[in-house]
Amino acid sequence: MAELKGACIIGQSGGPTSVINASAYGVIRTALDNPCITNVYGAEHGIVGVLNDRLFDMGKEDAKELELLKFTPSSALGSCRYKMKDPDEDDADYKRILEVFKKHDVRYFFYNGGNDSMDTCNKISKYMQKVGYECRVMGVPKTIDNDLFGTDHCPGFASAAKYIATSCMEVWQDAHVYDKGMVCIIEIMGRHAGWLTAASALACEYGCGPDLIYLPETDFDMDAFLADVERIWKEKGNVMVAVSEGIHYADGSFVSEAKTSATDGFGHAQLGGLAAMLANLVKARTGAKVRGIELSLLQRCGAHLASATDINEAAAAGRKAVEEAVNGCTGHMVAFRRNTVDGKYACELVLLPLASVANYEKKIPLEWINEEQNGLKHEFIDYVLPLIQGEPVLPLVDSLPRYAHLKKVLAK
Amino acid sequence: MAELKGACIIGQSGGPTSVINASAYGVIRTALDNPCITNVYGAEHGIVGVLNDRLFDMGKEDAKELELLKFTPSSALGSCRYKMKDPDEDDADYKRILEVFKKHDVRYFFYNGGNDSMDTCNKISKYMQKVGYECRVMGVPKTIDNDLFGTDHCPGFASAAKYIATSCMEVWQDAHVYDKGMVCIIEIMGRHAGWLTAASALACEYGCGPDLIYLPETDFDMDAFLADVERIWKEKGNVMVAVSEGIHYADGSFVSEAKTSATDGFGHAQLGGLAAMLANLVKARTGAKVRGIELSLLQRCGAHLASATDINEAAAAGRKAVEEAVNGCTGHMVAFRRNTVDGKYACELVLLPLASVANYEKKIPLEWINEEQNGLKHEFIDYVLPLIQGEPVLPLVDSLPRYAHLKKVLAK
Repeated sequence: MAELKGACIIGQSGGPTSVINASAYGVIRTALDNPCITNVYGAEHGIVGVLNDRLFDMGKEDAKELELLKFTPSSALGSCRYKMKDPDEDDADYKRILEVFKKHDVRYFFYNGGNDSMDTCNKISKYMQKVGYECRVMGVPKTIDNDLFGTDHCPGFASAAKYIATSCMEVWQDAHVYDKGMVCIIEIMGRHAGWLTAASALACEYGCGPDLIYLPETDFDMDAFLADVERIWKEKGNVMVAVSEGIHYADGSFVSEAKTSATDGFGHAQLGGLAAMLANLVKARTGAKVRGIELSLLQRCGAHLASATDINEAAAAGRKAVEEAVNGCTGHMVAFRRNTVDGKYACELVLLPLASVANYEKKIPLEWINEEQNGLKHEFIDYVLPLIQGEPVLPLVDSLPRYAHLKKVLAK
Repeated sequence: MAELKGACIIGQSGGPTSVINASAYGVIRTALDNPCITNVYGAEHGIVGVLNDRLFDMGKEDAKELELLKFTPSSALGSCRYKMKDPDEDDADYKRILEVFKKHDVRYFFYNGGNDSMDTCNKISKYMQKVGYECRVMGVPKTIDNDLFGTDHCPGFASAAKYIATSCMEVWQDAHVYDKGMVCIIEIMGRHAGWLTAASALACEYGCGPDLIYLPETDFDMDAFLADVERIWKEKGNVMVAVSEGIHYADGSFVSEAKTSATDGFGHAQLGGLAAMLANLVKARTGAKVRGIELSLLQRCGAHLASATDINEAAAAGRKAVEEAVNGCTGHMVAFRRNTVDGKYACELVLLPLASVANYEKKIPLEWINEEQNGLKHEFIDYVLPLIQGEPVLPLVDSLPRYAHLKKVLAK
């Protein structure tokens, strides 16, 4: 493959995670060090920053601050939820992107995101090929939802899973303290895939977790749910339940739907308030003291509980994307393949065509869910446990987090 | 003072904290090692366990498991919210306690809790004196609310404060990521005192915290609140707000009152749902995307973010209570006095008469709150910062918390 010299852009898209900046670090550091890449730009708010020609010159950043990106949650460059139109219907955005690419001699484009972002990435890749502009486009995976197709797991998931498992263990301790018990319902993110909610099963494995876990992979049955809770309440006098925000009835409607009032830019319903709703129903049924807890944004930005494995893999994915692009690869996403080396978990980086990833959702295999559809089998624990391992040495000042401070100097 | 030989009881009461078990450890370990104390009993669910003669023989526990109490959140012996009657009106409970004390030759009683628990402690102390049963009764402070009178601060507060500050910093990162901003309202515990909500100001001090902080120390004005939020929304396009669950109007009614449906055993209203309520009002006023986040139980059991200073002080308070009791002290609570040694924070353990502590509430000095009553002055930062310092080395198994496993062998 002929050597391609030019600038690169890294963009972050979709919901933040604890380690998306670790991937950005992997891209930025590797690109800055590579002689083929003449300039490294960070797009402000993902593709929106490209469209607006708002590009930060990452070469102007302090190397130590860049390194702190590995421990800084959320998207340091800014994110977006911008849906690109199909270029066959409306190619205005693509023309504009091409214009900006040409202006800055951008020959490498790295996009760090989830399902929707890989779709964006794929469309841009195809358009650039179609118009004959030489540019290598690579996807770097990211999503706490862990629902990207073709990869064993996604950067961001494991740290959120660790946060959820630890928080469930702590709340279990708190909720079991009184002489009078309670029903505690914990609402966890995950619109269509239950990976995050399933992570609460780790807490069970280590002695104090939910009695019942409901995922969006199966249809939710309110009567069965209330009967489950009532049975355990009568047996133990204490019940902890984990529910995915995306649980739905057999007709596909979200259980929380009555509460839905807004949608995000992609037409996804914005969910919330489910725990409180279920808590009220349980209270009416059992008379128990109940509490609904929504882990909300805390679960996806809880970098202080990040998995070192996740941070390292996220950074490695970014590094790999740059190395492969410089070597000639384009139109692919970096993915993870799980191997076992000397009986231990090992993660191999592989490449998947973007088209094979975009817009597909990977869910929990039904055979990992118990027969009653209210808990996980041990296969899931075996899957998730290696991913959450390792505690990073977090940079602190006065015992509080020290995040990266970027100068964000705009490229002219 | 004559030597007093006999058994001791340690009881835990009120809401759990991340370090109440560190105090229990301080009491139990010191008592087990003291030749004057013949047996060490842990009361199941505080005073309720004494009334029911449900006492665990702590001498039968594994020493290593006892040490893990320092890192185990919530009340390992079980807690209660049991209000003792005035002994002049109804002394049935006191007679029963005396009976159990006599049965087990209990000569030392250590009670670990907040305001209401110090009241219980004080009543028992007085009753035992009145009936001439020699027994030394000591209070060990505990409350995330930090509202105990006469002590510089309370064990449990600092760890919750650190959790709140760190979580606010993380959520700030998350909430500032999109090209379109949002209003994020974080609801924090604290019924009458705003110490915990004020801790969110630490996040501001370190670069990413709430724009507005509302405490129960001042009267809440809904119009001023909505105007504050709208002003910042128009200025910055992003607003983060921290509110105490206990904010109230000038007439004393809780802002969240409409949502109140139940009370705890002491007649305190159970609050909650405030963030969601305020979020709806802000949305109606500004049209902004809004999100309400309730830190709920997470903030008081987040032991993985505990302050090492808090853990050490909590254990020291338990140790001190035993040492002073063996030396002849009774009817007192261990308290903290802040000193400065070589320009650095130092904590001195002192003793306060229980009667001077019980049922008083310590609030944030009004001169630490800004003129607009929507933020904190630097005096508060100076107060709280030393308390959150230090990261404990947490015992983990497979990167998840390893809590103490107690056998809980009942004394006959």
